[in-house]
This record gives sequence, C-alpha cells and structure tokens, in this order.
Amino acid sequence: MAAATAFTPGARAMARCDLMGAVPYSEVEGQLVRRFLTDAHRAALDTLTDWMIQAGMNVRMDAAANLIGRYEGATPNAPALMVGSHIDTVRNGGRYDGALGVMLGVDVVEALKLAGRRRPFAIEVIAFGDEEGSRFPASMTCSRAVAGTVDTAVLATCDAEGVSLGDAFSAFGLPETDLALAARKPGEVIAFLEPHIEQGPVLEAEDLGLGVVVAIAAQKRLMVRIKGAAGHAGTTPMGLRRDPGPAAAEAILAVERICASGRLGLVGTVGRIRALPGAFNVIPGEIEFSLDIRAATSSVRDAAVAEITAEIEAIAARRGLAASIELLQGLAESPCDPSLTDQLATAVAAVGLPPRRLQSGAGHDAMTMSALCPTAMLFLRCKGGVSHNPAEAVREDDCILAARAMLAFIDAFELNPTP
Amino acid sequence: MAAATAFTPGARAMARCDLMGAVPYSEVEGQLVRRFLTDAHRAALDTLTDWMIQAGMNVRMDAAANLIGRYEGATPNAPALMVGSHIDTVRNGGRYDGALGVMLGVDVVEALKLAGRRRPFAIEVIAFGDEEGSRFPASMTCSRAVAGTVDTAVLATCDAEGVSLGDAFSAFGLPETDLALAARKPGEVIAFLEPHIEQGPVLEAEDLGLGVVVAIAAQKRLMVRIKGAAGHAGTTPMGLRRDPGPAAAEAILAVERICASGRLGLVGTVGRIRALPGAFNVIPGEIEFSLDIRAATSSVRDAAVAEITAEIEAIAARRGLAASIELLQGLAESPCDPSLTDQLATAVAAVGLPPRRLQSGAGHDAMTMSALCPTAMLFLRCKGGVSHNPAEAVREDDCILAARAMLAFIDAFELNPTP
Repeated sequence: MAAATAFTPGARAMARCDLMGAVPYSEVEGQLVRRFLTDAHRAALDTLTDWMIQAGMNVRMDAAANLIGRYEGATPNAPALMVGSHIDTVRNGGRYDGALGVMLGVDVVEALKLAGRRRPFAIEVIAFGDEEGSRFPASMTCSRAVAGTVDTAVLATCDAEGVSLGDAFSAFGLPETDLALAARKPGEVIAFLEPHIEQGPVLEAEDLGLGVVVAIAAQKRLMVRIKGAAGHAGTTPMGLRRDPGPAAAEAILAVERICASGRLGLVGTVGRIRALPGAFNVIPGEIEFSLDIRAATSSVRDAAVAEITAEIEAIAARRGLAASIELLQGLAESPCDPSLTDQLATAVAAVGLPPRRLQSGAGHDAMTMSALCPTAMLFLRCKGGVSHNPAEAVREDDCILAARAMLAFIDAFELNPTP
Repeated sequence: MAAATAFTPGARAMARCDLMGAVPYSEVEGQLVRRFLTDAHRAALDTLTDWMIQAGMNVRMDAAANLIGRYEGATPNAPALMVGSHIDTVRNGGRYDGALGVMLGVDVVEALKLAGRRRPFAIEVIAFGDEEGSRFPASMTCSRAVAGTVDTAVLATCDAEGVSLGDAFSAFGLPETDLALAARKPGEVIAFLEPHIEQGPVLEAEDLGLGVVVAIAAQKRLMVRIKGAAGHAGTTPMGLRRDPGPAAAEAILAVERICASGRLGLVGTVGRIRALPGAFNVIPGEIEFSLDIRAATSSVRDAAVAEITAEIEAIAARRGLAASIELLQGLAESPCDPSLTDQLATAVAAVGLPPRRLQSGAGHDAMTMSALCPTAMLFLRCKGGVSHNPAEAVREDDCILAARAMLAFIDAFELNPTP
C-alpha cells in the first residue's frame, strides 16, 4: 500500500523513519520512546515485517527478538551479508538513530528485487531489539546474542518497574527464551554492514553526506579528586589557601591541551564537576570531576590518560594538594575490518563523494558483531551532530546517496574474495 | 562557687566557654548548638547572670534578649564602654566563636572589681542573642537593635519550624517585645570593644596570639554563568566543541591571579561549581560557579570585580561563548574606628606582642555597632583558622594575653580624649 508513490531507495527509508516517529511506534504521545519489548517495539516489528515481505524477504524473529529478513542469493542457503542496525530508541529520542540503518537495508534489498538481481550470497536485513539499553541496564544485548557473546545472566536483570528481561521476553511471545539460540555460526554470516547517523558534527562541518568508519573509539571513564583544605572564604588570605579549585582548573585546561594535540581521534571531556562542601563562603576542601577519554586506539587513549595523570599529579604536588584518579570503566577500540572498510570507501567514491574516513566516538552494534564476522560502518551526516534528541535530523539527499553507496558495495562485494 | 580555684583572667573565660560547650547550654547532646531564644540560650543566660553578678555587675535583659551586665564607673550613670560579643552558635559549632568575647568581658570586669578599681566610665558586658542567624533568616538582629538600626519587620520572619521571631520572644518571656526599646542613645555608649577568635589562619601562620582588626571586609557575592553548546563526548572532535568547561577553568585561574595581587585584604573564592547537564559522556552546555570577593575597601573589591568581569568576558569572547555575571549581594566595608584601633594596638604592645593589624573577612556585631559608636576588635589566634566546627580551638595563654590587653586598653581609655 505504501508503495503507491514512486520508490526512491533511501528517500523512502527516511520517510519510513518519520512514520515510525509517533504512536503506535512510540510508547509516548508527542515523543519518540521505543524501548525493547514494549508494544511500540511490537508495532514497529509488525509493520517492518510487512515491508520486508514486500521487499522480497523471508522474515523471522530470533530468540533475542531481533527481526531478520532474508533475501536469498543465487543459490539457496548461501552465506549472508548482514545489513542493519537497531530499532529501539532512548527516551525522547530521534527518528533516525538506529532505525535509518534498518530501513536503508530494506530499501536496498527491494531495489535488488525490483531489478531482478541476486548475488552469490544472501542478504539479511536485521533490526536489533536493544542497543540503547534504555529499558534494561545492559545495552547491545541483542547483537551480543547474534554474535554469540551474550551472558544469559542478563535475563534476570530488571527494568525500572521491576520486570525482568526474561519475563519481558515471555510477555513479548518468547517464553523461556534461550538467547544462545540466536547465535549465528561463523560461516553463516560473512560480513556485517551498519549504516548509521554520525551523531557528531564532522561530516556536516566538512559538507559531506557520507563517511566511512575506521574504528569505534577506545574509551576510559575516570573520576579525578583533588583534595586541599576547606576554609572560610573571608578570613583565609590567598597565600595561606590550599584550594583545590584552581588546581582542578589547571587540570581541565591540561585535558583540553593534551586532547587537542591532533592524535588519532583523541577527545577528552569533563562532563561533571563539583566542589565540596559547595557553599558560597567556603573555600572547597575537595573538587571532583569526571573524565571521559576516547581515541581510535587503546594505546593513543592510554598515552593521553598517562599524560593527563602525570600532569594532574604535578599540578597537585606544586600546589601542596593530594590528587587521586580512579578508573571506572575501560573499553578497547573496535576496529572495523580494513578490507571491508576499503570496499565501502570504494563504494562511496563510486557515488561521487570523497571517501572520508572517520572514527565513531559512540558505541554501536557493529562493535559486538565484530566478534562474529568482519564489520563495516557507513555514517550519514546529521544536523548539528545532534542525536538522542527530537531535533535529530538527516537530509533526504544523503539518505539517497547512502542507499546508492550500499548498492555499489553489494555489487562489488565477493563471497570468496581473492586474498 | 566557681571561684574556689585561683582566678586567672582569660584562662577562666576559656574554661567557661568549655563548660558551656554541652547540654544544657547546647540544644543537642554530643554537639554544640545554641540558637537564639532556645532553652540552651536561656540556660546560658541564667548561668552568665550569676557570673556577671559575681563580677560586680548589675544585670538586665534588654528588649532584644541581649544580656547586659553593668559595672559602674567612678560616678553613677556615666557613659559606658561596652565589651562583648554574641552567645549564640551555628549548628554543630565551636565553643569560642562569640562566647569567648563575652566571657573575656566578665573576667576583665571581675579583675577590676577584685583590684577595687573603677574608671571614669562604666563598663557594660553584653551577650548578643543572635549574630549567626542560625535559627531565623536574619543575622545580627540583636546588635542592630542596640545600634537602633533594626527593621521590626524581622519579628514576622519564621524559623524552620514555622515559629515567628515575635512568638519566640514571647515564649522566652518577652511578650510583645518592642525591639526599638533596646536601642541605646549615642551618648550612653562611648565605644564598643569586641574580642573574637580570628576564624582565619593569619595569626597562627605568624605565630602571634593577638591581632587588631582595622576593618571588616567589603564583600560581593556573584554568580557566573558561561554558556556553550552541549554535545556527545565521543563524537564531537576537540576543534568543533564549544565547551564552557575550559573557559570556566581559565576564569577560575584569573580569579586566583587577580586576587593574589596583594591588594588590601583582597580575597576571591569559587565555592560552588556545576556543569549542566552534568553527565559523564556529555560535553557541558553550561557551567555556573559562585564568586565571593572581599577586600578591605569597596573600591579595592569593585576594582577586582571589574577586572575579573573583563577577564571572563574576554575569555568567553575568545572561545565563542556567552558569559553572564549576576550580582547577588553587596556589603560595604565597615572600618573599625582608627583612634580606638590605635589605642587597642598600644594595649597589645603593652603586653609584649607586636600589634599585628589585620582585617576581618567575616562579619561581626562590631560592624552593626559602628552605627552607634566607635568600635574596635581584638582577634585571638585559633587553631588552623577553623571555626563553625567542633574542632574550633584556642590557646589558654592567648586568652590570658587577651584579658591583659583588654585591661591595658581599659586602663588607658579616656572618657573625653583630648582631640
């Protein structure tokens, strides 16, 4: 029914994301909230099933509630190139983060079907159910299940209403689900291609519609505490203070300076800061601030963390203060497959764009899928770099270019490339 | 009864503060909390009345619940030199902040009585009921009443339990009190001397027991807000950020640099800071921090505020950010009387100490009393500069020196000094 108008691959994907930006595809009127295993998720999968069938695919739901449409290759049961992203959103999120990658996959397959073309490999379009972790504490449960790396203990975790993930699967029609059944055998899936909005401002700043991701950044989260001596703001002369505030200020400038050095994808952010006790007329006894450091590689990230740590310790020592730096979380980088990435870059060039290679500072399903198969990511420009927000926006011409680049990639992709 | 042991003026004052550091002189077991018009306040005044009578004074309570002991001069009804401080404390406060000034006054008068000496002027020891403002919103209500500058609207203000100040006076035995009745006529009180702990580290750092206050600092409280653009900590390259954090860091270092320039008593404090939205993985869209600037004079303070304002605006402009600075409160300096301060310095020198002149960064009853008569303040060293804390501590030898300096001051003080 929706195919009554002319079909332009990419443009229709964007329109479908817009359609899914409201009730019943959202849990909340006037916002987009589509969390894992909710009625809104169910509504999205029901409609997506229709669209996949229309595009010539066989559709099934796996044990982790991923929806998978399969477009067979020239021979039945051939290994598959998997394309897709996640269908869930954050609370009050945007229409394209995740969903656009799924809809682009459907458009591309339908274009192949309309052209009567089949490749030596199958194409599977997947809509992962939970990437954001906006309902249950863990994120990327569904792509972990497909990659065979999920810990089934996750089934016992609960959402804010106290419903366990296991019970939510039951309520969704998957009673006593065994997440291990969703795992794919390595030979079945030969590659994973994830189209996704950039969620950053790089492509827009360079006036480019598409980008090729070389890696998902390595990350460390740290908490820095600098201790001095609290005192009366009126009665303690400047020379007798042991105020951790200016020390923290020097540290924040050091983070900016070190991270602006241009090393591979290095970024550093102080997102949270507070002074204790935090009164107008009291010199703080302690300042604590968060540190989020990311880079293309763990070694670049760790070198920056080491440099920042040394700098903070020197600042504290010079000022007679005590500094401590606590590591809260560390994630290694997840490089995309170099050969697959080269092929994607060639495809982007084939549609007339310079193949800008960039890293992803945010995590993606492609990160977990790399445990199963080679992965590549295609980024689409998004307005102002904004995501996780109703203001999230993409351009229709970029979506059309993305679909064309994906088709060029599929055209050139080989089942058994010569080494 | 308490006079069974040998009486050393100053040492006994300290011991009496220690005695009053617990129930029934505190509202709370294990802490010192003595707020205005509570049973603990009443208990302190009852015992203080006994001590004042024993020291040779006639005792009365004025309409503002101040306790006043009067030691007549050589002729009855002579004008009075007033000595004292406040008897209330903050919550979980120290034993000496305020009370020590009252007890030193009693000790000094008792020493005069024991020596059979009277001066041409009377001496009145006063225990102000409310300096801290730890029960009702306004502070220094009682010294304002004595100085004749109180706004009677304060009677309608309520404590945290919803009890109005007027009702609290009634419950304390002062029904329908008229605060104006507490006001003294200018000729009645010829000077006010307030001994008080320093509440700062200057005297301790210079190994001095006493100091002479030249002025109570001028003060401004401001709130600084720097606005940039929030963004994803992982996906926004350093060069494309509009992060207000490093700008705030530069501003904090500018505050430190400008205030450390050594200008008259200038101090600047950033006691509170927060980043908005305040998430680990979000570049802040806004940073706000408090600014408390004090100096010996309003003009030094205002010059510093102007310099800091210009610096913050330049930092924001250079970084493409928006800065705003909101003035929340401004208080002019309150100089102590130069002639009286000289006399106090001479008295300090007479007991063998270099008469270190310093400013008070904190507010005191002497500030409001200066509307009525010339004022002087004697500071006593306190351990680590700590006050408003159970760890507040003084040295007994300093208390003895303070009593001796006060006696020397009283000895030399003239009713009608030659101009």
